[in-house]
Amino acid sequence: MISSLSELGMALRSRELSPTEHVTDVLHRLAADTHNAVITLDAERALEQAAVLDAELARGEWRGPLHGVAVGVKDLFDVAGLPTRAGSDVLADAPPATADGPVVARLREAGAVVVAKLHTHEFAYGPTGDVAATGPALNPHDPTRITGGSSSGSAAAVAAGHLPLALGTDTGASVRTPAALCGVVGLKPTFGRLSTDRVFPLSESLDHVGLLTADVHSASVAWDVLSRPDGTGGGIQLPGVKGVRVGVLVDDYWRAADPVIDAGVGAAVARLRDQGASVVEVRTPMIDGLADVYGTIVGAEAFATHADWITTRPQDYQPATRERITPNAGMAARTYVDALRTRRRLVAELRAAADVDVLVLGTTRLRATPIGADTVEVDGKEVPVRASLLALTLPFNLTGWPAVSVPGAVSDGGLPVGVQVVGVGMEERGVLRVAGALTRS
Amino acid sequence: MISSLSELGMALRSRELSPTEHVTDVLHRLAADTHNAVITLDAERALEQAAVLDAELARGEWRGPLHGVAVGVKDLFDVAGLPTRAGSDVLADAPPATADGPVVARLREAGAVVVAKLHTHEFAYGPTGDVAATGPALNPHDPTRITGGSSSGSAAAVAAGHLPLALGTDTGASVRTPAALCGVVGLKPTFGRLSTDRVFPLSESLDHVGLLTADVHSASVAWDVLSRPDGTGGGIQLPGVKGVRVGVLVDDYWRAADPVIDAGVGAAVARLRDQGASVVEVRTPMIDGLADVYGTIVGAEAFATHADWITTRPQDYQPATRERITPNAGMAARTYVDALRTRRRLVAELRAAADVDVLVLGTTRLRATPIGADTVEVDGKEVPVRASLLALTLPFNLTGWPAVSVPGAVSDGGLPVGVQVVGVGMEERGVLRVAGALTRS
Repeated sequence: MISSLSELGMALRSRELSPTEHVTDVLHRLAADTHNAVITLDAERALEQAAVLDAELARGEWRGPLHGVAVGVKDLFDVAGLPTRAGSDVLADAPPATADGPVVARLREAGAVVVAKLHTHEFAYGPTGDVAATGPALNPHDPTRITGGSSSGSAAAVAAGHLPLALGTDTGASVRTPAALCGVVGLKPTFGRLSTDRVFPLSESLDHVGLLTADVHSASVAWDVLSRPDGTGGGIQLPGVKGVRVGVLVDDYWRAADPVIDAGVGAAVARLRDQGASVVEVRTPMIDGLADVYGTIVGAEAFATHADWITTRPQDYQPATRERITPNAGMAARTYVDALRTRRRLVAELRAAADVDVLVLGTTRLRATPIGADTVEVDGKEVPVRASLLALTLPFNLTGWPAVSVPGAVSDGGLPVGVQVVGVGMEERGVLRVAGALTRS
Repeated sequence: MISSLSELGMALRSRELSPTEHVTDVLHRLAADTHNAVITLDAERALEQAAVLDAELARGEWRGPLHGVAVGVKDLFDVAGLPTRAGSDVLADAPPATADGPVVARLREAGAVVVAKLHTHEFAYGPTGDVAATGPALNPHDPTRITGGSSSGSAAAVAAGHLPLALGTDTGASVRTPAALCGVVGLKPTFGRLSTDRVFPLSESLDHVGLLTADVHSASVAWDVLSRPDGTGGGIQLPGVKGVRVGVLVDDYWRAADPVIDAGVGAAVARLRDQGASVVEVRTPMIDGLADVYGTIVGAEAFATHADWITTRPQDYQPATRERITPNAGMAARTYVDALRTRRRLVAELRAAADVDVLVLGTTRLRATPIGADTVEVDGKEVPVRASLLALTLPFNLTGWPAVSVPGAVSDGGLPVGVQVVGVGMEERGVLRVAGALTRS
């Protein structure tokens, strides 16, 4: 399988490889997947669509860089004709969706072939990927460990080389954390840039649609297609980072529990400095206060969505999900309003503190942990898994800034680490340019 | 006093009238006001500023159409050096504001002279203007009747001819309803177009800054200054309404209790049709559901603001305000989240139902009612005052669309009626153009 979208796109455009051959290959790989990444294959329709795209190419018609490219979609997105089950038995009997959501529709229009719905942490309400009606997703780097979540199947399928592109969602971590733990690239664009219509909501104030690919250039190609109304554009150029102002977060909050992650961040920052970026320290005295409101906002919004089901069908939830939703039943409106106000105030403070183009930091505080573990021991200290997989990513759901996780240098030769590039004074293309400078060899 | 901003602006620019003469005249009028419209005069600073503007004109420097124009500001806006008391004894000892809010600052920069803080319904939480620490505002057309609110002093001072321009705020009615009841023009722009920074909040999801003037052309002049970053622009032209698609709301919800108001709306629509507008009926089956969420949203947000004071200093609130705030103490977060979701869904339905450039409807269901009356009798039926002064305006705080209230034809020769022009497919300038076509003689 060719995992780079630009190589794959060239092979398809030149008819070296046909959409049908590529889609058939991907369907075989997904059918043989051993990471519990796949919920449903849409094989028949995928092959029909591939044949149409074959014929178009034979006539000299080319829809752009995704023409004939197989994509997978987290099972939180509506895909016409398939149920959206969101990883939950609550939706075991969901009827087929009546229409594609806008992002799925945009991919199809651009020539992508939707081949599968992929594993998600139940209702996207967790960063681990091991809580779902169909059991845990397994990390391709070590199947005893989590993929991270909630876009667990998207990360696993890309990491396993099954798919060149997958859609995910990210409310606090859910594209970037599984990308980090599985060693792939995960892009969470600016809040609102990609429509969340017909995507099962977790928290409408924080939900972002994002994408996962094997490398930064592929993410750029896909982002170009999704963000440009005319669908043209063959990926951004990567002209270097000279003069880019890079902020490094120096407060304890941002420190990883696993020192290999911070070593990866250090190597990334050094690399950017070597390429001409200017590096400044950024202090964030408001970060604990800002991070504190995350659970309130998600809790209030998730509870409003689940209030009826959690009362009438509690047994259909996984216990961990039920335990996360239920305590929000008694939340007062004032608590939620105050959280939204604190968010606005502290985001403004963070913006003022971070007078840079991008921030470079870790994606998570831990690498992939054993499936089912709530805590792990690091240097003799118990470290909570969930918080460690959310803390470094959720601030940028609260700010809404674009952020990408890319594989960083792994100083012990072990599991992958994620390095995050977050746009403050830069939009997605700038963020991807900096991320590209980190990963180009 | 010249009440038209374009006439006044010309007289000032030509030095027929000096800023000092004009400001002195306004200060005298406000000092002698009998409508309880004024909270504080800022006489000394106003005269100092007028002298500066005199000198600029003498040197041939002209800041634009508000150069030397006296303006009043609802006592909800921060004006540097003056306390913001929001009509409440809760803020009786408020310290002087340390800075102007952005809209006040923009007016000063454009050459306007802030002469006074004006009466507001307590904390802007009511559409009547008769609940405030300083007593009720009195309608210039009949001092036994309310001005409407909450921008009570702004409407009364413009209606009395004291001021050519006043700032107000509008969360559900508060610029348009007092404009209607006092027979002046009130513009609520699109949500977010004018900053609410340093304006005491009622409900951040619904608060709009707006303005009141004696006529539509003056509103256009002021809007041009406030909405254009360079401050140039001498008011829009009014080229007619040929081809404009006007929607008329035919469901019972939109019917006034006072038939003179609906007669005014009918006359306005006929006038637009005569001038070449096309008139279509618009049905709004979602309107009751949409209007229902208003109280929940305002209640939740207002309670969060007042929660501490209402507990520790309940006696400092007017009883009517306390009774409005207190019941929201027990509101669940879910209720508020659901209200926000219903709002989004039904606003989309209303937008789809109203495929027009503007809607033309009444501003209120009643004309100015006796001070202190909770209900009035119309044709033998008890009609609630508060709901009647909110129902026709609050939908457009929920949608965020621009809306202006202009004086309509009064078929019985009595108190003024307000006709509302609401932009659906048009922005503020289009709305003002249509409003101008209604009122030009």
